[in-house]
Amino acid sequence: MKFQEKLEKAIEKNDSLLCVGLDPDIQNLSGEKSQFEFNKKIIDQTATFACCFKPQIAFYAAAGLKGVEDLTRTITYIHNNYPLIPVLLDAKRGDVGHTSEMYAKEAFDFFNADAVTVNPYLGFDSVEPFLNRKDRGVFVLCKTSNPGASDFQGLVIEREPLYIKVAKKSLTWNKKYGNVLLVVGATSPNELMEIRKVVPNMTFLVPGIGAQGGDLKTTLSNGLIKSHSSFSRKRESSKGLIISASRSIIYNSSPRAAAQKLRDEINKYR
Amino acid sequence: MKFQEKLEKAIEKNDSLLCVGLDPDIQNLSGEKSQFEFNKKIIDQTATFACCFKPQIAFYAAAGLKGVEDLTRTITYIHNNYPLIPVLLDAKRGDVGHTSEMYAKEAFDFFNADAVTVNPYLGFDSVEPFLNRKDRGVFVLCKTSNPGASDFQGLVIEREPLYIKVAKKSLTWNKKYGNVLLVVGATSPNELMEIRKVVPNMTFLVPGIGAQGGDLKTTLSNGLIKSHSSFSRKRESSKGLIISASRSIIYNSSPRAAAQKLRDEINKYR
Repeated sequence: MKFQEKLEKAIEKNDSLLCVGLDPDIQNLSGEKSQFEFNKKIIDQTATFACCFKPQIAFYAAAGLKGVEDLTRTITYIHNNYPLIPVLLDAKRGDVGHTSEMYAKEAFDFFNADAVTVNPYLGFDSVEPFLNRKDRGVFVLCKTSNPGASDFQGLVIEREPLYIKVAKKSLTWNKKYGNVLLVVGATSPNELMEIRKVVPNMTFLVPGIGAQGGDLKTTLSNGLIKSHSSFSRKRESSKGLIISASRSIIYNSSPRAAAQKLRDEINKYR
Repeated sequence: MKFQEKLEKAIEKNDSLLCVGLDPDIQNLSGEKSQFEFNKKIIDQTATFACCFKPQIAFYAAAGLKGVEDLTRTITYIHNNYPLIPVLLDAKRGDVGHTSEMYAKEAFDFFNADAVTVNPYLGFDSVEPFLNRKDRGVFVLCKTSNPGASDFQGLVIEREPLYIKVAKKSLTWNKKYGNVLLVVGATSPNELMEIRKVVPNMTFLVPGIGAQGGDLKTTLSNGLIKSHSSFSRKRESSKGLIISASRSIIYNSSPRAAAQKLRDEINKYR
């Protein structure tokens, strides 16, 4: 099954646009013995309310070999126990072609992720090895949710900011490969609307809700794919965004309650 | 000792601007049992002719846990046996601040690299956690050597291409932190000259010689830091570039001869 298809089935099954980020800091495992044990509890509690799990590889890489092993176990655990929920590896990889080929092996063959985030700064040949894996999803960083995003992403080229150039280029890649999605932060809702106009049908991963302060209602109203049919103006057909949350869920005293609450809050505005 | 200082001592000791890339594809180990064993041979043969070793993390990550272990052993082997030669981890990392913090731990604490390459697309707070490690070097991707580099890096903002904006921003970061260097490909010698004008005193890592077709003579004449004193117009004071080569050395039937030859060829034009 292709990533986009798997994602849409999970969205439908759990009536959810919530992507649960698995970023356990080893300094902060609250009693659990390992990153894997910590994740296992989160996954079991939140799998009913999530459309996607998104481990952030940096948090495991910082823990060395043990961390890499825990990330492998985490992804395997999800595939074995919740096979309908796709795994997006947040890795923001990108390098010259033959090196990106190796990163594609890391994400898709070794970790067996369903999708990966990539950094577009090196251009087409740095993204192509990921695009070639047509059953996997490739989330291209477009506009990120951090303060530094304006340093370069916001620079204006012939009246268009760089992130719009990235969105347009991603659209042309998607026409050929069919497996491109974007990362667009919730911290700049106007820019989200602007990007949605340029790419009306692509799915966006939206970080920046919660800890980083993005507003949920505006994010959804500016980012969801508009349905033109009055028959299909029901929640099931309202899509095009997956909303990522990590710390606000995984460090909550009840990850289950936090995930359910956020899933329902998102659905209120769909 | 700070990275820049360690690098300059190695340049002087081995009379070399050659950076040997350690990117062993596990498909191509020519009889050696592991990536570490393959590297050990290369390191022993080339350490006299190199000013820096540059393992590319993707090649190890693609090989899973065993690869990560082999990369760790490789870096430890260099530190223990050739402590004067710095290790630059080519990882092109970059993410929002608290995640980049984890990547800095990966590169500097777990792998114990002397320097790392970073991708600037996410802006200042994505680079800051690396900059904060003032004894380590931070190579910011400016203009890369691959065909896709023109897709975004070459876009023009108010008469200046994006890579010049990155160079200028890196200069301001360096004024505060003192440990910034740039990656500038050899495949665009005019752009190298243009960047050198903007950052007259920063050291550049230059990939793209050899396999990718960059011209050595033009690269050196356009990229070296010009000395203004006639007394110091000798080779020892000619610096500011480290020239990276990987496949042309590591897959050569004699890595020793290939490294010596390239080191000497570089020195001809210094």
